[in-house]
Amino acid sequence: MEALPALAGEIRDFLVSSVSKTGGHLGPNLGVVELTMAIHRVFESPRDRVLFDTGHQSYVHKVLTGRQDGFVGLRQRGGISGYPAQDESDHDVIENSHASTVLSYADGLAKAYRLRDEDRHVVAVVGDGALTGGMCWEALNNIAARKDLPLVIIVNDNGRSYAPTIGGLADHLATLRLNPTYEKVLDAVKEALGRTPLVGPPMFEVLHAVKRGMKDAVAPQAMFDDLGIKYVGPVDGHDIDAMISALERAKRFGGPVIVHAVTRKGFGYRPAEDDVDDCLHSPPSFDVQTGLPQASGGVRWTGVFSDELVAVADERPDVVAITAAMAIPTGVHKLAAKYPERVYDVGIAEQHAATSAAGLALGGLHPVVAVYATFLNRAFDQVLLDVAMHKLPVTFVLDRAGITGPDGPSHYGIWDLSVFSVVPGIRIAAPRDAATLREEFREAVGVDDGPTIVRFPTGSVPADIPALERTGGVDVLARGESNDVLLVAVGAFGKLALDTAERIAGHGIGVTVVDPRWVTPVPEILADLAAAHRLVVTVEDGVRNGGFGDSLARLLRDKGVTTPLRDFGVARDWHPYGTRQELLTDLGLTAQDLSRDITETVLRLGDSSEVRV
Amino acid sequence: MEALPALAGEIRDFLVSSVSKTGGHLGPNLGVVELTMAIHRVFESPRDRVLFDTGHQSYVHKVLTGRQDGFVGLRQRGGISGYPAQDESDHDVIENSHASTVLSYADGLAKAYRLRDEDRHVVAVVGDGALTGGMCWEALNNIAARKDLPLVIIVNDNGRSYAPTIGGLADHLATLRLNPTYEKVLDAVKEALGRTPLVGPPMFEVLHAVKRGMKDAVAPQAMFDDLGIKYVGPVDGHDIDAMISALERAKRFGGPVIVHAVTRKGFGYRPAEDDVDDCLHSPPSFDVQTGLPQASGGVRWTGVFSDELVAVADERPDVVAITAAMAIPTGVHKLAAKYPERVYDVGIAEQHAATSAAGLALGGLHPVVAVYATFLNRAFDQVLLDVAMHKLPVTFVLDRAGITGPDGPSHYGIWDLSVFSVVPGIRIAAPRDAATLREEFREAVGVDDGPTIVRFPTGSVPADIPALERTGGVDVLARGESNDVLLVAVGAFGKLALDTAERIAGHGIGVTVVDPRWVTPVPEILADLAAAHRLVVTVEDGVRNGGFGDSLARLLRDKGVTTPLRDFGVARDWHPYGTRQELLTDLGLTAQDLSRDITETVLRLGDSSEVRV
Repeated sequence: MEALPALAGEIRDFLVSSVSKTGGHLGPNLGVVELTMAIHRVFESPRDRVLFDTGHQSYVHKVLTGRQDGFVGLRQRGGISGYPAQDESDHDVIENSHASTVLSYADGLAKAYRLRDEDRHVVAVVGDGALTGGMCWEALNNIAARKDLPLVIIVNDNGRSYAPTIGGLADHLATLRLNPTYEKVLDAVKEALGRTPLVGPPMFEVLHAVKRGMKDAVAPQAMFDDLGIKYVGPVDGHDIDAMISALERAKRFGGPVIVHAVTRKGFGYRPAEDDVDDCLHSPPSFDVQTGLPQASGGVRWTGVFSDELVAVADERPDVVAITAAMAIPTGVHKLAAKYPERVYDVGIAEQHAATSAAGLALGGLHPVVAVYATFLNRAFDQVLLDVAMHKLPVTFVLDRAGITGPDGPSHYGIWDLSVFSVVPGIRIAAPRDAATLREEFREAVGVDDGPTIVRFPTGSVPADIPALERTGGVDVLARGESNDVLLVAVGAFGKLALDTAERIAGHGIGVTVVDPRWVTPVPEILADLAAAHRLVVTVEDGVRNGGFGDSLARLLRDKGVTTPLRDFGVARDWHPYGTRQELLTDLGLTAQDLSRDITETVLRLGDSSEVRV
Repeated sequence: MEALPALAGEIRDFLVSSVSKTGGHLGPNLGVVELTMAIHRVFESPRDRVLFDTGHQSYVHKVLTGRQDGFVGLRQRGGISGYPAQDESDHDVIENSHASTVLSYADGLAKAYRLRDEDRHVVAVVGDGALTGGMCWEALNNIAARKDLPLVIIVNDNGRSYAPTIGGLADHLATLRLNPTYEKVLDAVKEALGRTPLVGPPMFEVLHAVKRGMKDAVAPQAMFDDLGIKYVGPVDGHDIDAMISALERAKRFGGPVIVHAVTRKGFGYRPAEDDVDDCLHSPPSFDVQTGLPQASGGVRWTGVFSDELVAVADERPDVVAITAAMAIPTGVHKLAAKYPERVYDVGIAEQHAATSAAGLALGGLHPVVAVYATFLNRAFDQVLLDVAMHKLPVTFVLDRAGITGPDGPSHYGIWDLSVFSVVPGIRIAAPRDAATLREEFREAVGVDDGPTIVRFPTGSVPADIPALERTGGVDVLARGESNDVLLVAVGAFGKLALDTAERIAGHGIGVTVVDPRWVTPVPEILADLAAAHRLVVTVEDGVRNGGFGDSLARLLRDKGVTTPLRDFGVARDWHPYGTRQELLTDLGLTAQDLSRDITETVLRLGDSSEVRV
């Protein structure tokens, strides 16, 4: 056992060195080194099943299950995933990365083993941040009703999800964390407090927790105990012997047990421990000595939104913002710095984000819910009924819309255009550059009778693309010599469309490039424009099924416009890891591929002029 | 105050008499008579806001706010809603009826009043069943972090949601309910136990709770207290003086308070109190003396599924079922009666239903998740990532798909075909009659590499519609003299399509009627069939946006088939109350309207033959 701390040190050094080159989730994994080692020491994976929520804390698990060599290609094309992946290893179970799901999986899996009379344990690792998501509570409520499930739940409590974990639950966990009967843990936390320059909310939260901890010390585990689940802890998650001992006790118990491990995000790597703004949660490649990123690109979409939100809020006291534990990644931190009482961090709780926004709107405010596109899927029903059916003015700002890249298939924002376009009364804007992002965001917060969405991709924002004219709400970006092709480009594909049009023009085919700006509802003028061309082409950064192309085709059918239509978008499939550009190339969403395809289509139309109506 | 119990009695008599004629939610409203009277006595609606979750417990509120006369048209065309409705009264706030949302609304509304410095209270009524939904926990976690919110949460605890509330939370509430320091409440419950023939789980639950209650009496309110929310109770919810007193204390407190009211579903009406199977939760018109329904229609879709589920489970030991607190309404109760260990009731927790099903499937079982179509919207992200991305064999059976009727807009199952058709690898079946429901359900549970959906409407199942032949997976239901129109009817619209075709045939136009059976992915043979006709028509019981019509149109574009297409479905809008037939008539989904429209289209095509390619 004496070799274990040394091994832990080696794993940490490896992770820092490796992730500094490839980028990836660093802080969360440094925090679970001993915890993961203890799991693999006590349980027999893959016979016993080890589930991680969220999957980005599985790097140590990957190292311990023989995938150290794969880290050179972490999150890259053809390389290993940043999450567990069944096709990488029998030790992996859950592949996706949306938080708060693991206890539900674990409940089902343990029930199946019971029903099939298989003697296997299910071990679920869940962060304190993920516990703010309602799914965890739904699962705990069910798990508590089954005393016979062979289920060990490890709460990895570092007091932060992405940002510091908030809410009554966090206070309660903070109380447990500081239970004075567990001197050792308390000392460890005090020491951490002493040497870490915590400022603002985290310090306040910890101090507040110390006070509550003293008062509630008689029954600190009451919350989990009330649910009827056995509780072990708190345990110092960086003391590997203590973790092994706690897990062995939990394993012997037979029924569901919660093991409360107190850990420190970034533990053992000073820049990550001191990382108040959580930049080392999931950094790009960085300098090992300083923890600072190697390169900083141009202005990002997020930054443009972040500044404009502050500008709008300066003018409009009714504008407030909501984030689901991601103030910095979504850019609402700037508003929070200026008007702290006007930003609500609801935890990892997208459902509550949407419906509490409905409540704020009922109270006369205009909430802006800033969230990654993929996470709004969690709140479809709430956007539909709680917001839209009540015709409430809530603006959802969807960052990371479209193909994102290294975060993999579960983070792609390719569903929003399809799914949310079915919502009655919703309006969806897709800006093409910084200027239209500012403009369309302002239009969105100007809507007072229903929800609006403004969606944009990840990465750097391109140079502004001026319009030749605006007609019927639609921006005309380019005109050809003749009206052959109407090329309708959704949002950030404006630049792609212009490049495509230029190539096609070389074949003597005239292309009109338009940006609809608001893609739902589809601007009616597009039917008139379509009727004046020989071919309509749409290109969008989302799945084709139910997307903008389908909607424009429906408009043309309804208006009796028979111009043929070709719609380009993302195939309905799971797409692999890679950079955004690599994936768009795979999908044929390049100027080269589009121009060839469109040119061929126009030439075919030329051969059979009866297609022209 | 002495007049209040008399008034309560009058309201009860009125509700029983009125709902016995119109149908509607009876049991839940009989349970909240005193509670609602107390709210209106202590708070000043509409200045203070009263929010109900779910809205079907708002009848007493409607009576007390001047809408007694409207009950003659309850849930009927042009009549009052079965839920709060802003256009009926300034006293109404939340219009929809999906559970577990109210605390999120209340959190937002109270925050808005604080930010705008308005001195108004928010009163939120939530059932113990709704607390099993994760949204409530997300909201409580946020509310607990704000000591300054003027928010009174009334937990209406009757120990049942639709069915007896399950899980660790229910045990905990049962403990509180029986806290021996509240002798009066205990006595009332004992009395209720004495005179009510409870059988099965409820009795066990209560006995179990008595034991726990004695043990935990020192700190029964620990769960809510741990979250940092003040707790008052338990209070006898049928003792109006006690309720008024508790609410006055809560109002004075200033911060968020939970008032725990113990009530009895159906209180004061013997047939509803004795209603173990919860038939009087939301009955059709019934006999006041016996509580028995006036008429029982033919065989219902739900019944066909219910029997077939048992038949399949007899043959396949790996088939299990999940319900979200609706075992009887979805028909899984028959399986539960035969194989109790193979049915999991997860509470009102659709997210957990989907992801725990994923866990069961990982464990080698084939789960059948039986749920109303409208409620699966709650689990879109879980179906997409937790089930489909992992290629897990889970079958979702969607009852009440399409236009439903008296439950109003938030219960319409008109979104599933659009929303779930974007999920990679999913297969969606829409049976047209009892025979195809049995057949397609069996095909669905035979799929082992991804999720399946089988969706059908509410009401009685029509007589079986035999196919002339099956080709490429598609059933041909009728053929005309000539190949003019290909009429593709989704699911239960098979009969409508046949009636439509018969009318069109009268104009000398030949119609081929086909049922695709599996609507996602769209059977490829439909492209060949379309190419052989002059016009393609689709008709579906769901929104047009992203629906089957859009999908078939996309297939035709991809295959280069230029036959014009007309798609009929539900407009993307909020539709009013009415019977299913009334609403379908409004939407033009009748044989008369469809045949006229299709005939005119064919005649137009005939005038301009160049449309034929």
